[in-house]
Amino acid sequence: MNGAERLLETLVENGVDVCFANPGTSEMQLVSAIGNNDSMRAVLCLFEGVVSGAADGYARMADKPAVTLLHVGSGFSNSMANQHNAKRAHVPLVNVVGDHATYHLQYDAPLTSDVPGHAKLCSEWVGISKSADDLAVNGAKAVQVSMQGWGKVTTVVAPANHAWEESTKQAPALTTPDMETVSAITVSKIASALSSGKVTARFLGGRALREDSLAAAGLIAKATGARIICETFPARLQRGAGRVPVERLPYFAEQAAEVLGGLEQLVLVGAGVPVSFFAYPGKDSLLAPDNCEILKLADIHQNTATALQAVAREIGASIPAETARSAPETPPPCGVLSPLAIAQSLVQLMPDQAIVSDEAATCGLPMFSVTENAPPHEWMTITGGAIGQGLPLSLGAAIACPDRKVIALQADGSAMYTVQALWSMARENTDVTVVIMNNRSYAILNIELARVGAGQPTPKTLSMFDLSRPDINWLEISEGMGVPATRATTAEEFHQQFAEAMMSRGPRLIEAMVVQQMP
Amino acid sequence: MNGAERLLETLVENGVDVCFANPGTSEMQLVSAIGNNDSMRAVLCLFEGVVSGAADGYARMADKPAVTLLHVGSGFSNSMANQHNAKRAHVPLVNVVGDHATYHLQYDAPLTSDVPGHAKLCSEWVGISKSADDLAVNGAKAVQVSMQGWGKVTTVVAPANHAWEESTKQAPALTTPDMETVSAITVSKIASALSSGKVTARFLGGRALREDSLAAAGLIAKATGARIICETFPARLQRGAGRVPVERLPYFAEQAAEVLGGLEQLVLVGAGVPVSFFAYPGKDSLLAPDNCEILKLADIHQNTATALQAVAREIGASIPAETARSAPETPPPCGVLSPLAIAQSLVQLMPDQAIVSDEAATCGLPMFSVTENAPPHEWMTITGGAIGQGLPLSLGAAIACPDRKVIALQADGSAMYTVQALWSMARENTDVTVVIMNNRSYAILNIELARVGAGQPTPKTLSMFDLSRPDINWLEISEGMGVPATRATTAEEFHQQFAEAMMSRGPRLIEAMVVQQMP
Repeated sequence: MNGAERLLETLVENGVDVCFANPGTSEMQLVSAIGNNDSMRAVLCLFEGVVSGAADGYARMADKPAVTLLHVGSGFSNSMANQHNAKRAHVPLVNVVGDHATYHLQYDAPLTSDVPGHAKLCSEWVGISKSADDLAVNGAKAVQVSMQGWGKVTTVVAPANHAWEESTKQAPALTTPDMETVSAITVSKIASALSSGKVTARFLGGRALREDSLAAAGLIAKATGARIICETFPARLQRGAGRVPVERLPYFAEQAAEVLGGLEQLVLVGAGVPVSFFAYPGKDSLLAPDNCEILKLADIHQNTATALQAVAREIGASIPAETARSAPETPPPCGVLSPLAIAQSLVQLMPDQAIVSDEAATCGLPMFSVTENAPPHEWMTITGGAIGQGLPLSLGAAIACPDRKVIALQADGSAMYTVQALWSMARENTDVTVVIMNNRSYAILNIELARVGAGQPTPKTLSMFDLSRPDINWLEISEGMGVPATRATTAEEFHQQFAEAMMSRGPRLIEAMVVQQMP
Repeated sequence: MNGAERLLETLVENGVDVCFANPGTSEMQLVSAIGNNDSMRAVLCLFEGVVSGAADGYARMADKPAVTLLHVGSGFSNSMANQHNAKRAHVPLVNVVGDHATYHLQYDAPLTSDVPGHAKLCSEWVGISKSADDLAVNGAKAVQVSMQGWGKVTTVVAPANHAWEESTKQAPALTTPDMETVSAITVSKIASALSSGKVTARFLGGRALREDSLAAAGLIAKATGARIICETFPARLQRGAGRVPVERLPYFAEQAAEVLGGLEQLVLVGAGVPVSFFAYPGKDSLLAPDNCEILKLADIHQNTATALQAVAREIGASIPAETARSAPETPPPCGVLSPLAIAQSLVQLMPDQAIVSDEAATCGLPMFSVTENAPPHEWMTITGGAIGQGLPLSLGAAIACPDRKVIALQADGSAMYTVQALWSMARENTDVTVVIMNNRSYAILNIELARVGAGQPTPKTLSMFDLSRPDINWLEISEGMGVPATRATTAEEFHQQFAEAMMSRGPRLIEAMVVQQMP
């Protein structure tokens, strides 16, 4: 058995069974090992940013890592933007990146680069294989570390000769440590703060946005009136009818400061202190009021569900919060195809347990609140802010949950970054409905330009946010990559096409020619 | 004047007048400054890998830097694969990458990452601005460093607040040092080696592949019989009828070793020691025979033309070498659409002074020798080996040379990586003819799989190199991004479509359904 085969065996034994791959010559033994292993599913992606984004989407839904297969430093760098998003989403992920044979590095062949240096920029753990046996040992360790806390991005650097040399020693199957629980002292401290009568909100992120944590947060809300605010870009929020609703911190700093205005206490539950996404001239980076006391219940990677449940017990909170109601029956939306009209179609047509990938940017913001009354679903957003996440994320989520409908709400500008994901959706026949919000613009940048005080824009300035000249034809691009597509220019057309998409299986794309009112 | 405006003023004063841009919020003042400056052309690209690849193509043809505009670490990482290619091509390039305002970094907002760490991985010089005034000082220095020797990749990290704060001090216009010349001692040493009667070849790379260097190399060849071998992936080779022909070192190590077999001396002229692109089990990394003496005439970044001319003088070589002849008139190719048939159409139809971007991978290798007899042209290849270079490179070359026809010979697998380049070709109405070699496969990997001895492939293994299921329809993708496209399935169809493309201006794409005989 060579090192590559041993690594594969080890990954499978440690519970990893999906590989998103874009290999090159230095990974041929690994490809061959996968090709000979029935337990590892291989999903070919035509760009590395699709590989990493898909692994992120898979992990968000499966709560375990997929493995990626990437080619030397340049291939890895193509994956880094979505590695960044995965890291910020605190998901488990195991990268395997091939490098030149160790003895070949000294010759500085054209593709030589600092592979560990690349890996360290966006991984929380990097293992560099020292031998054919060590390759699998690193693989086992990577899986173990990736499952610590909520999850971590890990990378194994695999020199080509370690993949082809003989491995004689089995690597261990490692156990995953349990998630750290919050101390009784912290629980008591937070319980008394919540009972103090001060104006209080909780700021929830990460795993605190799953149903179990939210139910406990709801008990506390009912007992104390403390609000539940969710981070601006949740990795995976469980919401919809029958679930405890949350307020979402707005993206724009002024609006966020308003939502947090008047608070005397803010309790962090698996989230950091709320800060502005970007700095703006003369504006504060911190969003909570100056005199608001910041308290922390649970750190990132701690168990938020047990912490919230303990607080609820300590304050004797036992009455469940009101949950989101199902939307009343209404006629289908008609007329102008606005983001709001699309959201109304979603509410009426989304199946139970749908998975939404929201990278709709300016279009997505108004769609969020309307869909609170949709059937129970997951809402996944761009946690790290690196655009080009939405299509790969929905591909990966669909691989993780083949029986659930995945809906990708996708801005046109961002879609272009990792457009190659469409091809893998077609190849794997994933049940993803992509809705391209075609506003022919980097619309967010038009808004940000005004917000940063960059002066009156010239036509040349505005041309740098303009995606027309030429207009992008998403029907042709989608069908060119094998995903059937239709175009909607009115709310009625969209509603009908989306209804058809919800009733059938398999990938499809709707190009929504949205008309937008800017915030 | 704010820091961004000062930087723009400085770049223009230092001779930089083209910006390839994919900006975000932290670059709004820079966008606005460009929007208000008539001397800087702005080319919007819909993915950062297009930005860096286009800047590389521009620099290869203009011999001066374009500036890129990139957004924080994630945007920069998307550009890194083509930065790697540019660095290996030794071209001048000035990156400007925005970062969070300096005081905002401490809050670790979602898009925060180690921007200088990213920049250092693929830049030969990184300047981190310390103030609004310092931003322009770094810009001037970046241009100066980028023009040292043959050219260097440089990066200016631009915190958002330095762009919007007031700048009161003009930055200097800096002079570029002349290229270093080779010492008289080295010239003499090489001259006597070349006169020794030993079996000798020169190994030429970089600037040594320009017409002036090649002419001098030709004089020496005529006088001594020393062969002229060019590196496998030249950044820019000036060739065609009337120019001194070169042997190109083959990609596959066995073939390369054969070409170098029997040599007693190898003289490096702006190239490193020839090494195998990848390592293979049981094969040498070094390609020259063990007993071949390696001598060096000119280092990378030294003046190869004057060095070769000095050697020619010293050995009294004054008779020009025979140059490549024009291809005889032949009937247009017919029948099966092979890479060879495409090459024959090129020879017959390419206009004078065309610029060829060759990322045709397995299809490109047999096309090279045939086109030696085409009219004088440039041949640019993937110097760093990071695929996804070809389309952006041809975009940038067309911006640098608006009066010359650019021909992109492009493998289908690689084309997908930076397919967004098509949109910018359409927007800028560049005179690029893209020929997609559609073989529905990462064909090179099928070959490499056998070469690395990874055993008999299973259907699952082979599926990881297979670009069918679904077939990619390049017509639709191209037209979806605004570039008119046609498909050719026979040599006759290709010839006619290519003839039309050569006679008209503006971007177009030909999807060539190639039938390939594998090497």
